[in-house]
Amino acid sequence: MSDAHEVATELRVRYAETDAQGIVYYANYFVWFEVARVNYLKALGLNYAELERSGLGFVIAEASCRYHAPAHFDEAIIVKTWVEEVKNRSFSLGYQVVNQDSGQALATGKTVQVFVDASGRPIPIPAQIRDSLTRHKRA
Amino acid sequence: MSDAHEVATELRVRYAETDAQGIVYYANYFVWFEVARVNYLKALGLNYAELERSGLGFVIAEASCRYHAPAHFDEAIIVKTWVEEVKNRSFSLGYQVVNQDSGQALATGKTVQVFVDASGRPIPIPAQIRDSLTRHKRA
Amino acid sequence: MSDAHEVATELRVRYAETDAQGIVYYANYFVWFEVARVNYLKALGLNYAELERSGLGFVIAEASCRYHAPAHFDEAIIVKTWVEEVKNRSFSLGYQVVNQDSGQALATGKTVQVFVDASGRPIPIPAQIRDSLTRHKRA
Amino acid sequence: MSDAHEVATELRVRYAETDAQGIVYYANYFVWFEVARVNYLKALGLNYAELERSGLGFVIAEASCRYHAPAHFDEAIIVKTWVEEVKNRSFSLGYQVVNQDSGQALATGKTVQVFVDASGRPIPIPAQIRDSLTRHKRA
Repeated sequence: MSDAHEVATELRVRYAETDAQGIVYYANYFVWFEVARVNYLKALGLNYAELERSGLGFVIAEASCRYHAPAHFDEAIIVKTWVEEVKNRSFSLGYQVVNQDSGQALATGKTVQVFVDASGRPIPIPAQIRDSLTRHKRA
Repeated sequence: MSDAHEVATELRVRYAETDAQGIVYYANYFVWFEVARVNYLKALGLNYAELERSGLGFVIAEASCRYHAPAHFDEAIIVKTWVEEVKNRSFSLGYQVVNQDSGQALATGKTVQVFVDASGRPIPIPAQIRDSLTRHKRA
Repeated sequence: MSDAHEVATELRVRYAETDAQGIVYYANYFVWFEVARVNYLKALGLNYAELERSGLGFVIAEASCRYHAPAHFDEAIIVKTWVEEVKNRSFSLGYQVVNQDSGQALATGKTVQVFVDASGRPIPIPAQIRDSLTRHKRA
Repeated sequence: MSDAHEVATELRVRYAETDAQGIVYYANYFVWFEVARVNYLKALGLNYAELERSGLGFVIAEASCRYHAPAHFDEAIIVKTWVEEVKNRSFSLGYQVVNQDSGQALATGKTVQVFVDASGRPIPIPAQIRDSLTRHKRA
């Protein structure tokens, strides 16, 4: 990820993601966070699918979102993602959801991931991954 | 399942299941079919979670739905389920989605399931299960 | 809701709610919170579907969840729900997700709701509803 | 859409779309069909979001899918879409889901859409749209 400490993921709102209020259902922002998270890690050189095939992975320990303005069907969305904190067994990512056309911030969020082995037991973040996460932490 | 050849599963429409048209999003009927399918098999004495733990399972080979009238948030729904056909390695279930208060038929559907082993390879339906499915086939 | 200051909503984990880790996908806890929220308000005498038909409603301003242990397909789940705080235009609910069989706490969460009119503009919580929410606040 | 009678939509499998079998949950193919449908219509010059804002829209009357091989997390997917049939008030689209890397066909599907006015009543397909759909029908 060269020098970028923030990665932007582009999405387009699916009809499936809206609800009867005509806006994106609140839980779906966490799906977008997942898409952005996978993308962020790829930018760091970490392929989550490969990680899992190697018997490692992480589970979500915490997730939160503040909603500022609604998103609607077919709008172009950007989810900016960055590392907030790196601990021994967990790391947290921050997210900002932006309407690509208006530039309006729609939501901000955070997730905490805990590394686990194949049996789901927490383990220290592999050194190489922890180094990479730490190096790219947003100042 | 004593003598019943049709099992009724009760659901209540979740806000998450609606879309910007104010009605239940079309793909979610297939989620309801899954809930009804699991329930139907339990009525037959077959616990799908246990089946998977034993290394077996089935995958969906075909799914279809005809939509007659929309469902809305918080409506009480019944999904009637029955066996349509039993073959060597697959069986099909039929579904009717009904508005519990009005009695109106909202949708009808069908899914075909193929039994697979732990590696995902098609296998004959275990004899006891096939017998049970066949015995409960709707006339 | 007579005197109960906490309402328990029962769910059963759907296959659709699981992911490739074999556990319930983290965003789906927020769907459960919605089901529990609608149920909680009903216990208070507030039907959200009717509220929306009257031109009112609320939007989610904040949502968070801490995950303690995973949930799996077909497990019986209880979501306990209570009022945490009542302000002029918003109120917050707390949730605890429990495995019904083991009694194990799986997750705890919170959502903040802001009342809005038909055009999505924040409005004071209608007095009767605010009184009811306040009266049932968990001590 | 110049001369193309088939439009390809690219997707990447989200973790949220997988289930405990480690593959994409069967109902989510219909979400992909929606994304591909919206994209197909855009290629034809028809923006569905604008259509709805003008008081028109369509509802799904039928949906079906045959599953040939599973899709997994993070795989690159192409959904090819084409017009199958155009009637007075409805039209049907066909879909083929392909693994972009292997070229393997994963699923084929079909949906039937019925045009409705703002009150949900079926109406004839607006002439200009019907002409465009007819013109691009796959031979």
